[in-house]
Amino acid sequence: MLIQAIHHLPKNNYAFIVNDKEVEIRIQTGPEVKKVEIIYGDKYDWDSTVSQLDMTVLGRDELFTYWYCRLYCPAKRITYGFKVYGPDQVIWVKETGYTSEPIEGHRELFDFPWVHVSDALTISDWVRDAVFYQIFPDRFANGDTSNDPTNLTPWDSPPTPTSFYGGDLQGIIDKLDYLSELGINAIYLTPIFTAPSNHKYDTVDYKTIDPHFGDLSTLKKLVNACHNRGIKVILDAVFNHIGWYSPQFQDVLKHGNQSKFADWFNISDFPLRTHPNPNYECFGFVASMPKLNTTNPEVKEFLLDIAEYWIKEANIDGWRLDVANEIDHQFWRDFRRRVKAIKPDAYIVGEIMFFAGPWLQGDQFDGVMNYRLTEALIDYVAEGKIDSKEFTHQLNKVLFYYQRSAMLGNLNLLDSHDTPRFLTRCKGNKKLFKLAAMLMFSLPGAPCIYYGDEIGMEGGHDPDCRRGMIWNKAKQDGELLDWYRRLIAVRRNHPAFSRGDIEVLNLGNLAAWKRWWQGEEYLVLANPSL
Amino acid sequence: MLIQAIHHLPKNNYAFIVNDKEVEIRIQTGPEVKKVEIIYGDKYDWDSTVSQLDMTVLGRDELFTYWYCRLYCPAKRITYGFKVYGPDQVIWVKETGYTSEPIEGHRELFDFPWVHVSDALTISDWVRDAVFYQIFPDRFANGDTSNDPTNLTPWDSPPTPTSFYGGDLQGIIDKLDYLSELGINAIYLTPIFTAPSNHKYDTVDYKTIDPHFGDLSTLKKLVNACHNRGIKVILDAVFNHIGWYSPQFQDVLKHGNQSKFADWFNISDFPLRTHPNPNYECFGFVASMPKLNTTNPEVKEFLLDIAEYWIKEANIDGWRLDVANEIDHQFWRDFRRRVKAIKPDAYIVGEIMFFAGPWLQGDQFDGVMNYRLTEALIDYVAEGKIDSKEFTHQLNKVLFYYQRSAMLGNLNLLDSHDTPRFLTRCKGNKKLFKLAAMLMFSLPGAPCIYYGDEIGMEGGHDPDCRRGMIWNKAKQDGELLDWYRRLIAVRRNHPAFSRGDIEVLNLGNLAAWKRWWQGEEYLVLANPSL
Repeated sequence: MLIQAIHHLPKNNYAFIVNDKEVEIRIQTGPEVKKVEIIYGDKYDWDSTVSQLDMTVLGRDELFTYWYCRLYCPAKRITYGFKVYGPDQVIWVKETGYTSEPIEGHRELFDFPWVHVSDALTISDWVRDAVFYQIFPDRFANGDTSNDPTNLTPWDSPPTPTSFYGGDLQGIIDKLDYLSELGINAIYLTPIFTAPSNHKYDTVDYKTIDPHFGDLSTLKKLVNACHNRGIKVILDAVFNHIGWYSPQFQDVLKHGNQSKFADWFNISDFPLRTHPNPNYECFGFVASMPKLNTTNPEVKEFLLDIAEYWIKEANIDGWRLDVANEIDHQFWRDFRRRVKAIKPDAYIVGEIMFFAGPWLQGDQFDGVMNYRLTEALIDYVAEGKIDSKEFTHQLNKVLFYYQRSAMLGNLNLLDSHDTPRFLTRCKGNKKLFKLAAMLMFSLPGAPCIYYGDEIGMEGGHDPDCRRGMIWNKAKQDGELLDWYRRLIAVRRNHPAFSRGDIEVLNLGNLAAWKRWWQGEEYLVLANPSL
Repeated sequence: MLIQAIHHLPKNNYAFIVNDKEVEIRIQTGPEVKKVEIIYGDKYDWDSTVSQLDMTVLGRDELFTYWYCRLYCPAKRITYGFKVYGPDQVIWVKETGYTSEPIEGHRELFDFPWVHVSDALTISDWVRDAVFYQIFPDRFANGDTSNDPTNLTPWDSPPTPTSFYGGDLQGIIDKLDYLSELGINAIYLTPIFTAPSNHKYDTVDYKTIDPHFGDLSTLKKLVNACHNRGIKVILDAVFNHIGWYSPQFQDVLKHGNQSKFADWFNISDFPLRTHPNPNYECFGFVASMPKLNTTNPEVKEFLLDIAEYWIKEANIDGWRLDVANEIDHQFWRDFRRRVKAIKPDAYIVGEIMFFAGPWLQGDQFDGVMNYRLTEALIDYVAEGKIDSKEFTHQLNKVLFYYQRSAMLGNLNLLDSHDTPRFLTRCKGNKKLFKLAAMLMFSLPGAPCIYYGDEIGMEGGHDPDCRRGMIWNKAKQDGELLDWYRRLIAVRRNHPAFSRGDIEVLNLGNLAAWKRWWQGEEYLVLANPSL
């Protein structure tokens, strides 16, 4: 038996709360293991409570088999060990190591000391059932030409890093019939606060809507109109950095270390310079996006107040957190507390492109933008770099590395304003693109459609992936639009896909998984190379 | 190569902050691996920053080799992968899996997105340098007979669960010369607040000193006298449960679900009953210790106020947290915030007998009572169940499973009021006992001497381990006392033992480790069977 393949340590993705009397326990073993039993009991009454249960296979990848079980904990505490059956050997796995001797007593075992639902990651119903639509406001629809920037780029021309198209919040309001008909029930807007760029990730004033997009009343009107249609709205919280032209950074540029905002940033020395590299912390090395010192209580309060303000003022339903992993954990803990205090079902989803476990323990985010799944779909469907078996392996990793509710709280995406369009990655092959979309809709995590994907828009790397939305029906791909409408309808009508459990299967050259929920069960099969 | 033996995921004990520009990265491999390199760079400037470095062996156990390195991060962010050299194969380890292809670019690698020292676990200097002395006040010294309970048990008689001996805070004050001479520089007192039992884990009033122990002025006098001698004082925070005779629980007993304290507890149904089991949550099944509902904001505020009160009022230096793992994480996060706000170098140490990683991430505790080390020392030294090799394996597990600062913040102990005395476990064999003490003093983590261990007191399971302190010099073991004085002096004079790095060595039938700090280096060798 590959004893070294066995891995388990309590909490994180290996032991977590399901509900007030139930925990899920997982263990990783080598592929040769045929059976795993869990031996468990209440450590304060071990002898009369010790029980055992067979564990179930959660999934497999190229190296490991992942097992799980759910344990009912009447006294809210569980101490446990494992009995692992190899081909020619049985071993017991304890916190202190591996033995060939049966477990006696609980001293060396693993412990889940108390089930506190307050520590669990719980996902709001609306998030589990959400189908998101991501809008880059300058490029979606121009509903009010009176607020257009000067020197507009014609709607159908290719974007440059600095072009403006005139899209705005009124444009979105005008297109709500389209979105309702599509069937989505949540919108994610990239930044809308006052900022000089077209993407507005260089905020100048977090408390005003960019005048080219509208104003507070336009946003309220948009949110109300959405809510009336059962559509939730989340905004983009760009709290990692502020814009060069913000009054705070301008003050530091002007007054140097005498500025009352000097401690809002991390500056190596004065005066500020931008060449060869900035002498202050930035997003990446982008001088126009100075990083905020979120460990300064004044900065923290400034930002948390903004997080509350837009919920209270415009009744938005949550926040997508830009560059979320470069801000301190303590900031996000306070962010969660403040946001959930005024809107308990608000959605908090972080932009993290790598493993995000440390942010998904119940104290910070509800989910992350699931770029690991995006990449697996690109490799599998768009670029054919991995086969069905390898894809299910990647999928199992994504599923195993997070606790179950984080999986349901993630935002799944084929592409975004930061990546080439998926259809373009497929070199325009609609069959592949449709397959990828179907897979995304059938997996745990809220699917997020990047505006225009549903009508066949193409585009390479930023800024090409940010073209003006095609509203001319003759130029929209009706077949794709119909496909998306069907996918959305299936997902929204069959909670097995949004709320259900998942089991990834091994079916020869097909990627396959089951989803089930309250008596309904579906089997999803795929092979892009057939 | 045993590819399945390889394990790494960012944060927790695998990737953590050392200081504002340095992170430590660790990886686990099989024992056959001869070399590991880390390939790392800044993902925003990958091509011109990518570098590589050989990793160092941190330790080995029966199954794994543990490697580490420290990476300097000028831009405060590091993305990385590993190159692992097996006997006949080289593989690259990425977040997405294992390949035989060299790493190109950073997309699939591991990421430590930003070094925020505010998220790091940092241990106060005094804690790293501390030698603790644990006192069970009823049994240490009776300095004020006027506050004695009635029906005292004679000081030299064996304890029963209900016997009182008359020890008090004045007694401790009277014995400070003894403690100073011993050389300790920190005291941990088991509970001293008003409670009916002799152990006082059944609190009635958290804001008054038990009248049999003294009063607020006695505590202040004790803390001042200690501080004047350079001795810190921490108290026992029994916040998991309250006592049956507390006014809060009495009110619920009297008024049932009409009590304003009904939500302070988790009660299944009314009226309360205690047989066959309590119908309310308790510590274990102990009806006289009803568990507090620490997720109730009123209860939380009540307890956090107490945590602050004794720091402000009596200037204590920290808290030992009773049954710490059965209280919710959110409570402890707020506890840390409130305590550190008024005393930044306060010590917060949790009683957790199992793996405590989830509490040692920087947001909750500074350390835990290191019972896993205690158990390894019992098995190795006292009971001879494991040999030197197995002991170093257990030690390596303890060292690897926590990040480095947690290791220095742990409280190491041979025994306590909850376990048999170590000398008794050694069946009175002083040579073994002296060895165990030496090992404890030479390892990372603050050693904690349970009162009387240093003069050879014996005692089996509770209550026998809680005998009255022997003050008659003729009955004290002078050889042991001298041994302890020397151990304490060596540790306090040579920071390699308190602040230094550690490397556990493989030296045949000896357990061995190096400790070093600023040019000083020591080698510790042991074998209890020689």
